[in-house]
Amino acid sequence: MSTPSPQRARSAAAKQQRERAILDAARSLGADRSVREVTLTDIAAAVGMHKSAMLRYFETREQIFLALTAEGWEDWSGALRARLREFVDADPGAVAAVVAQSLVARPFFCDLLAQAPLNLERNVSMESVYEFKTVVLGEVAALAAELCRLFAITERAAIDVVATATSMAGALWQMAAPGTGLRALYETRPELAHAVVDVEPQLARILSALLEGMRSTAT
Amino acid sequence: MSTPSPQRARSAAAKQQRERAILDAARSLGADRSVREVTLTDIAAAVGMHKSAMLRYFETREQIFLALTAEGWEDWSGALRARLREFVDADPGAVAAVVAQSLVARPFFCDLLAQAPLNLERNVSMESVYEFKTVVLGEVAALAAELCRLFAITERAAIDVVATATSMAGALWQMAAPGTGLRALYETRPELAHAVVDVEPQLARILSALLEGMRSTAT
Repeated sequence: MSTPSPQRARSAAAKQQRERAILDAARSLGADRSVREVTLTDIAAAVGMHKSAMLRYFETREQIFLALTAEGWEDWSGALRARLREFVDADPGAVAAVVAQSLVARPFFCDLLAQAPLNLERNVSMESVYEFKTVVLGEVAALAAELCRLFAITERAAIDVVATATSMAGALWQMAAPGTGLRALYETRPELAHAVVDVEPQLARILSALLEGMRSTAT
Repeated sequence: MSTPSPQRARSAAAKQQRERAILDAARSLGADRSVREVTLTDIAAAVGMHKSAMLRYFETREQIFLALTAEGWEDWSGALRARLREFVDADPGAVAAVVAQSLVARPFFCDLLAQAPLNLERNVSMESVYEFKTVVLGEVAALAAELCRLFAITERAAIDVVATATSMAGALWQMAAPGTGLRALYETRPELAHAVVDVEPQLARILSALLEGMRSTAT
């Protein structure tokens, strides 16, 4: 059995620490503005590294944000499953409200959910996509298991619910465009009132009806 | 009453013709590859204009694609409403299948549906967004009216259905990533089988359950 030399272990720990610093800087910038506005140069400046040095840790800016998307899935799924395990009775409205609330409480994750399939997965190596998808599929399966337990629906139906929750959270969050000139435009023009998107209640209504419909067709 | 001079009318017609040529070139390029890969330079080359000359007709590449998204809404909504008017009985499964089929038959529109809130609406003038939203809200209201007629659901519920249909079509189409290396990766690795997205059946299942649930909570 071989153990890593102290030198090797130190440098591995240093590498991991540096990766963590890059991810934290990207998360902080992405949460402040929006993911689409953060460049590799911004992240390098925030972490105090040269851009070329940073590329020794991550292939592209998309790989950095894809890694943060995977962490977002683990965080969201863990927190939501803990909430779902508290339910004894399966009430579509109450479960939908909890799911919607858990997503809206994570605006940076909502931003990433929309960015991932369009932009992030398209500018990284196949190996990075593979790692990312493995994490996501694991979390989807774990969440689906909780929904199956609560509603006696098929695994496929439960996966459809998770896909709808995450995709609609991503899409509605982009449409809501909080804090932007777009949002101000929608709010000041009465004829655009229907363009004002309030993510949490709309997401909760959609998921509630979806769970209701899946439950009624399952029995 | 003033009539435009023949000179003026000729030049207005010429301008419109040129705009049409630009839109058609962008549509053709976007449908061949994907919207995200088409640059302003590509469109200028396809239409045989200099980039700077093209900017007299459209502000940005995003404005060109946003105009095509508005046209996509009109085309899709018109075709779908014609299909919905044929229904006498309201069957969620049959209606959902027609909606899913009508979207999947328009892959370029699906691509635009995901791009619009993330990228297209963010890089054009407020005036362009206003025009775009006015078209979209009109088509959403017209489609919602057909769904209200069929299912005796509220207008708000019907708008939620249209939002889910279009947002999920956009998101699932990006996840399906047809014809890309990503799709090939998902199909060749058995452990990624759940990452393979087949848009039409999944969208039909989700919309069917959603309509079922909305109908059951409405009564």
